[in-house]
Amino acid sequence: MIIIGEKINGSIKRVAEAITKRDVEFIQKLAKDQEEAGANYIDVCAGTGPSIEVESLKWLIDVVQEVASIPLCLDSPSPEALAAVIPYVKKQGIINSVSEEGNKPQKIFPLALKYGWDVIALTINDNGIPKDAESRLNIARSLINKGKSYGISEDRIYIDPLVIALATDNQSMLKFIEVMHRLKEEFPQVKITCGLSNISFGLPKRKMINRHFLTIALYEGLDAAILDPLDREIMGTVLSTEVLCGRDRHCRNFISAHRKGLI
Amino acid sequence: MIIIGEKINGSIKRVAEAITKRDVEFIQKLAKDQEEAGANYIDVCAGTGPSIEVESLKWLIDVVQEVASIPLCLDSPSPEALAAVIPYVKKQGIINSVSEEGNKPQKIFPLALKYGWDVIALTINDNGIPKDAESRLNIARSLINKGKSYGISEDRIYIDPLVIALATDNQSMLKFIEVMHRLKEEFPQVKITCGLSNISFGLPKRKMINRHFLTIALYEGLDAAILDPLDREIMGTVLSTEVLCGRDRHCRNFISAHRKGLI
Repeated sequence: MIIIGEKINGSIKRVAEAITKRDVEFIQKLAKDQEEAGANYIDVCAGTGPSIEVESLKWLIDVVQEVASIPLCLDSPSPEALAAVIPYVKKQGIINSVSEEGNKPQKIFPLALKYGWDVIALTINDNGIPKDAESRLNIARSLINKGKSYGISEDRIYIDPLVIALATDNQSMLKFIEVMHRLKEEFPQVKITCGLSNISFGLPKRKMINRHFLTIALYEGLDAAILDPLDREIMGTVLSTEVLCGRDRHCRNFISAHRKGLI
Repeated sequence: MIIIGEKINGSIKRVAEAITKRDVEFIQKLAKDQEEAGANYIDVCAGTGPSIEVESLKWLIDVVQEVASIPLCLDSPSPEALAAVIPYVKKQGIINSVSEEGNKPQKIFPLALKYGWDVIALTINDNGIPKDAESRLNIARSLINKGKSYGISEDRIYIDPLVIALATDNQSMLKFIEVMHRLKEEFPQVKITCGLSNISFGLPKRKMINRHFLTIALYEGLDAAILDPLDREIMGTVLSTEVLCGRDRHCRNFISAHRKGLI
């Protein structure tokens, strides 16, 4: 499973403070800790106002790539900000994200082509997130085909089918899995990713629900997730599930993570 | 999901002491607590030597059914002990267990018929537990058909396909699920049950592995499990998974268990 470490995000108060104060040590520790815990990418999101986003992102990129040997997942709602900072990133990573809002495909896919990056594509358009699975599937299909028309092969696209809260639709996870399976049937090389927390919105014990969602989604073929690799319980879920699914030869990763105290 | 509470088992040291000392209060608390936590059956296993098993089981049955309103799951390796004590049980429950060892089918099925009990059937014969899924499937088929020949309809049979340790076969869970699906295809009314702990034998973090196994097995259609309903984490797994699978209308059971502090 591909783990995108979510900790360096300006929407987290302590991280926002570190960005404002240019606290190199704090950010670098978050980067190193996530890499040691097993992250494959480090998500970097400034979460600041548009006027200082480029400056904040550029600082974060410089600081993180000084200490991390894994690539970045550059996270911004603004294609312009992404275009402005991507030249400063040394390793090819993942652009987070494209969608069918506005002219994002026309801006993001050429950027991904030029720099050789992968792309996370959200099933959202100018009307928001469609409630029915069929419409989300249609947006995914359209984004994958647009990507291809710009020269981005489907194996470089991570679709996030944007799971709905169980509290509003108790078939939400089942629909998510159906969308995932149908996409994999139609586009065998496309990767499926997701954030975990939407599923539990409005319920108690959210982390508990999120972990069990991850178990079932992983079992069903989820390729990647944006999560907190420093959460020993969620990493326990990832590694237990991989052992159970026969994907961890001789249970080596699981036993090693246990010895290192990561789960 | 059908939860069979596993706490009243003489193989647990503290329970063995309570049986020896005839500690009514201790046993009755275990029975009541399991019922309140959501168990549907209370497993009762003396775990004593054969010479005093009938006497111990009879005492346990009397003590438990004084306080529990849910039925029992009578647990003994000895068909004779089960036959001797079953007349003392007020509510029809589950016999745990039949298998293809010795003449168990000829003894257990008539007993189930006479008293109207359900039966747990283990996929084991005189050669032990077969390592390959096909042989375990064959034992299950044979037991179901023997049950039917004695007048026990398939909806009264719980097959335990006896999962193998992941440490010896990393396809173990996947094979378990395959056996479960094939049995349900061939015998749509049969129930599938299992104990959780074998899967993690030889690995660290056993409870973690067991919980994730339960999540995936439940998602795939497991009907029942013998487990500790007083373990808040395992009950959290059961209830989260049922919410995620769309089986908990308006998330009511989950929210109620959260309010009662059961998860």
